[in-house]
Amino acid sequence: MKIDVVSTVEAVDENEIKNKTTIVIDVLRATSTIVTALNNGCKGIIPIVTVEEAFDKAQQLAEGSFLLGGERKGVRIEGFSLGNSPLEYEKEIVENKVIIFSTSNGTRAIRKAEKAKRVFIASFLNISAVAKKAVSCQDDITIICAGTAGKFSLDDIGCAGMLVHKIVEEIGVYQVSDLAYIAYYLYQQHKNNILDLMKMANHYNYLNKLGLEKDLNYCLKTDRFQSVPIWSKGQIILD
Amino acid sequence: MKIDVVSTVEAVDENEIKNKTTIVIDVLRATSTIVTALNNGCKGIIPIVTVEEAFDKAQQLAEGSFLLGGERKGVRIEGFSLGNSPLEYEKEIVENKVIIFSTSNGTRAIRKAEKAKRVFIASFLNISAVAKKAVSCQDDITIICAGTAGKFSLDDIGCAGMLVHKIVEEIGVYQVSDLAYIAYYLYQQHKNNILDLMKMANHYNYLNKLGLEKDLNYCLKTDRFQSVPIWSKGQIILD
Repeated sequence: MKIDVVSTVEAVDENEIKNKTTIVIDVLRATSTIVTALNNGCKGIIPIVTVEEAFDKAQQLAEGSFLLGGERKGVRIEGFSLGNSPLEYEKEIVENKVIIFSTSNGTRAIRKAEKAKRVFIASFLNISAVAKKAVSCQDDITIICAGTAGKFSLDDIGCAGMLVHKIVEEIGVYQVSDLAYIAYYLYQQHKNNILDLMKMANHYNYLNKLGLEKDLNYCLKTDRFQSVPIWSKGQIILD
Repeated sequence: MKIDVVSTVEAVDENEIKNKTTIVIDVLRATSTIVTALNNGCKGIIPIVTVEEAFDKAQQLAEGSFLLGGERKGVRIEGFSLGNSPLEYEKEIVENKVIIFSTSNGTRAIRKAEKAKRVFIASFLNISAVAKKAVSCQDDITIICAGTAGKFSLDDIGCAGMLVHKIVEEIGVYQVSDLAYIAYYLYQQHKNNILDLMKMANHYNYLNKLGLEKDLNYCLKTDRFQSVPIWSKGQIILD
């Protein structure tokens, strides 16, 4: 089994992932939010690239059946009822609703994975479940880090490193790309204190400056959930 | 001073580098070859993207004044007199000649840097000289790793890490992008045995399998030369 890690949305080769299991990570915060919302009873999440597309999609759905969620530059989009904090997506708010969701990097990454054999959504919150599920599919694995505004983002790479570690624990023998090796190595060096690694990420510090410390602490919790969001027929649902 | 590292040719943002000092690395082997050829008396190197463009350029130059050099998939291009082994570019062969040079990744990276304020060429062979020169320019620095066929390449990242280390030694205070930090960290962890890091690179192992061990050993020598190739007016020359 081959394991690759891709650093940004822009670096995804759509042809190369056709026969692969892909796993999308935007750990601060889009994929952490998706995992949380679905575990709190949200019916499905529709990943959307542009704000205009989000409002168009809203027109097509029955009033009261959906919520608009997402951010630009870390801040809730005007006219949307939810931002990108996983802590906002409480059971009372999201249960039985569809979320039309658009974020700067995460939802773009999910859409870029469209041609893959299958697409799972990962975060620290459900990392062991995703590793097990991906290994059970027995295809080569490409982990797509969303990155930040087209740039390499250490927070996603740290999470990818832990995911590679967990996949390797499951399968034993493996073949890794250079970036998969680096992510794995970085995780190995920081496995007793992943926060130290995260604090080196410019995006972590940007969100911290926005006052989002609670979100950051929450997103770093490991294995809070045992479920795997899968993107299927235009919606992300629990597998 | 800000220091950024970019992982592949494709990840270069041409607008972002306009006011920056850029440094191109394709350590196995294109930039090691360029540094060697110029130090052996080659008059200038013309970086070329396609084989067709190389033959067109050859038509424009006086016979006997130039040599064609380069590779695809690590092997000399048909009709070219030189490949991409730095050891081929001996004084007796390259002195007073212009080299029309086309490689899979390195020359594409140099051409992609075209809009930068200035472009230097780095390898382990001249790494301290490049660090000093770049710092003396007092602009933000973007280190462009050529990568391998559009992919993140650990060999280039290892060299970039040593370069970041040397730049930081010169300037003291600095601000790094996430990938610059990772490259720096990887170098710090392997500074007593950079070969261990290089051996994890898929491209290192690919070239080793092609029987290019001598080239690999040569390319890992540090500070053999004290000069900095600069791309200026369509040719790379010594600064």
